[in-house]
Amino acid sequence: MALIVHKYGGTSMGSTERIRNVAKRVAKWARAGHQMVVVPSAMSGETNRLLGLAKELAPSKADSAYHRELDMLAATGEQASSALLAIALQAEGMASVSYAGWQVPIRTDSSYTKARIESIDDAKVRADLAAGKVVIVTGFQGMDEVGNITTLGRGGSDTSAVAVAAAMKADECLIYTDVDGVYTTDPRVVPEARRLSTVSFEEMLEMASMGSKVLQIRSVEFAGKYRVPLRVLSSFTPWDIDLTEEAASGTLITFEEDDKMEQAIVSGIAFNRDEAKISVLGVPDKPGIAYQILGAVAAANIEVDVIIQNVSKDGKTDFSFTVHRNDHTRTVELLKDKVLPALGAAEVVGDPKICKVSIVGIGMRSHVGVASTMFRVLSEEGINIQMISTSEIKTSVVLDEKYMELAVRALHKAFGLDQQAA
Amino acid sequence: MALIVHKYGGTSMGSTERIRNVAKRVAKWARAGHQMVVVPSAMSGETNRLLGLAKELAPSKADSAYHRELDMLAATGEQASSALLAIALQAEGMASVSYAGWQVPIRTDSSYTKARIESIDDAKVRADLAAGKVVIVTGFQGMDEVGNITTLGRGGSDTSAVAVAAAMKADECLIYTDVDGVYTTDPRVVPEARRLSTVSFEEMLEMASMGSKVLQIRSVEFAGKYRVPLRVLSSFTPWDIDLTEEAASGTLITFEEDDKMEQAIVSGIAFNRDEAKISVLGVPDKPGIAYQILGAVAAANIEVDVIIQNVSKDGKTDFSFTVHRNDHTRTVELLKDKVLPALGAAEVVGDPKICKVSIVGIGMRSHVGVASTMFRVLSEEGINIQMISTSEIKTSVVLDEKYMELAVRALHKAFGLDQQAA
Repeated sequence: MALIVHKYGGTSMGSTERIRNVAKRVAKWARAGHQMVVVPSAMSGETNRLLGLAKELAPSKADSAYHRELDMLAATGEQASSALLAIALQAEGMASVSYAGWQVPIRTDSSYTKARIESIDDAKVRADLAAGKVVIVTGFQGMDEVGNITTLGRGGSDTSAVAVAAAMKADECLIYTDVDGVYTTDPRVVPEARRLSTVSFEEMLEMASMGSKVLQIRSVEFAGKYRVPLRVLSSFTPWDIDLTEEAASGTLITFEEDDKMEQAIVSGIAFNRDEAKISVLGVPDKPGIAYQILGAVAAANIEVDVIIQNVSKDGKTDFSFTVHRNDHTRTVELLKDKVLPALGAAEVVGDPKICKVSIVGIGMRSHVGVASTMFRVLSEEGINIQMISTSEIKTSVVLDEKYMELAVRALHKAFGLDQQAA
Repeated sequence: MALIVHKYGGTSMGSTERIRNVAKRVAKWARAGHQMVVVPSAMSGETNRLLGLAKELAPSKADSAYHRELDMLAATGEQASSALLAIALQAEGMASVSYAGWQVPIRTDSSYTKARIESIDDAKVRADLAAGKVVIVTGFQGMDEVGNITTLGRGGSDTSAVAVAAAMKADECLIYTDVDGVYTTDPRVVPEARRLSTVSFEEMLEMASMGSKVLQIRSVEFAGKYRVPLRVLSSFTPWDIDLTEEAASGTLITFEEDDKMEQAIVSGIAFNRDEAKISVLGVPDKPGIAYQILGAVAAANIEVDVIIQNVSKDGKTDFSFTVHRNDHTRTVELLKDKVLPALGAAEVVGDPKICKVSIVGIGMRSHVGVASTMFRVLSEEGINIQMISTSEIKTSVVLDEKYMELAVRALHKAFGLDQQAA
């Protein structure tokens, strides 16, 4: 008998028919003798519907009184789906009870719309489990110190599930979603992409931040911090498949570096074309340059991803970085108007037609030459590299966006990701 | 400056456009210097939508675990509309905050789906009012002793509003609804029906229980018990009508018998055709008869309204009562199968085609002959009276349903209800 946390996304909860399937699946686990805690998201579309109503009433409010009310509003979506799941479980003959975030309670800070979990009191949940009930803990939400409802931001139900699993020292946290696991890369781009049976949480972090949107990145951080075994698996398998088979499906995100992981040098290829490149050319190479440029960008609330400063030549240097593509025009104008004159730089050049491709692998730590293999492969394909950025378990390159699919396929093959792992 | 509670029904909150109008109206009152507490219902249709989903999942559950989850589910409708109203007020430049029932807290017993309010802590609300905020208190819901969400049953937002007004000793509780007050009778039946500018809460109780569905009956009881001045008025007047005019509109439900009330002998005519008549004929007239008949009916959870026992003749009597029309067949069968044999009665006769017409008036207490005027008027119209039942401020008759409109119109005229009160 194990203590298991299940999390179901909005698509899995999208209709009463689907909620009934979730209930049957959870009941199967409970009847196999497991203590079950379930964290459901709101029914798909519900959060957008509610926030759409708010937007009709107040299109442009941004103060915290407004955000407090947005959280009061949005939190109702998950509370309703939790109650519906409890009802569906009861209809399956399974005792169950649902708790809103404040009832557990899940305590958070007061950062409305993006609150952080501070503590979880699991006494009530444990008592119900001991009494043989399935406990539904409403995802996405909590309560601050003085009793205001807070929400954790988009995808926050993943974080709720992992936090509950961490607080209760659950044996495993299973995230049921509309994909059946984490892949070596996007199968829509590389048909040979393979599902990874395990991936380290550090790799998962890099993958998540690189655009593989299987899990909310905060939930992965949380899982890593509290060493919660986390599994991503499909909610679209038939609910009555063999439990042992289901329990081994999907991708397990682990925090232990076992032998198997040592063997895989590169675990996956991540990519996105959400970014734009900004270059400030002919900058006088003196202290404070980076701050002068990026300070202005940060002050305008523009997030910067890759940052590169080339070596100096004739006392001048080129400074490049990437921002979200939506911020491209705004960033170029800001630099031209405010920064260029003060800096005495020659020119600002923006290019939105770029992509970022990364190889991710915990094995890179102990294997030299991984990056150079990447560069060789790209060169053999005639792809010019515009920017390079590396970390301990990741190497990213910025390329012309037209090469994205070609680069991903070539790298996927070169690192043997289309071969079944040993 | 007064402390005012406004309550808005589901129709008044039915769209963002209407919510915006509510916000403008409330803001007008606040800007006139009043401290404002607002209790909104869920957007119209929302409660039915939510409970419909539950019904799809578990059509026939009736245990308290199920009812607990129904309350978790249904309570989200009001929480969402409260947050939306707070947002709309902020968009109007009015500081506001919304509280779910548990946040106030409004404490109730644990009778899920029909909980009763036990106490209200108004400290938080008072602090916000003192800080110049409009406070939205979510209607229809509360929290039991151990932190479960409860709801007060259909129309419970009226009760929430009156309870908040009572707890805070508000100067007046205004119930905004889709009718513009309490009428002498239903204007659809009698075009000359007049809106009453005042009505006593005892009369209102009788009217509400007789089918004039302007207010939930429990809210009227509550208002009477705690002497909360209650006003029913229309939410469909333009939001920007003169405040003094608005404050005097609708119908004020009072608990003081002023001079004006002494003058009106009959305040209104109530009626319904929701009932059926059951007669047990030829019953041996001996002690315990009423219990033998009605005990069996009550044991089957059938509610009985009017009860009549005729005088005995030759040691036999006739016993008649009314039940809800939906229970008609079941009651007749129950009596035939279980009661008639044991009782030695001759026959059970049921008639669903009846109506009940009542004259209601606090002035009846001190005026004799009111009932006899009623009987004379009906007799002049050739209408046969099947049953008569009287209380201190009400006389009800049961008639063939085909006479309902005729009887109501004749009585309305005979008691001068179409004339403006002096």
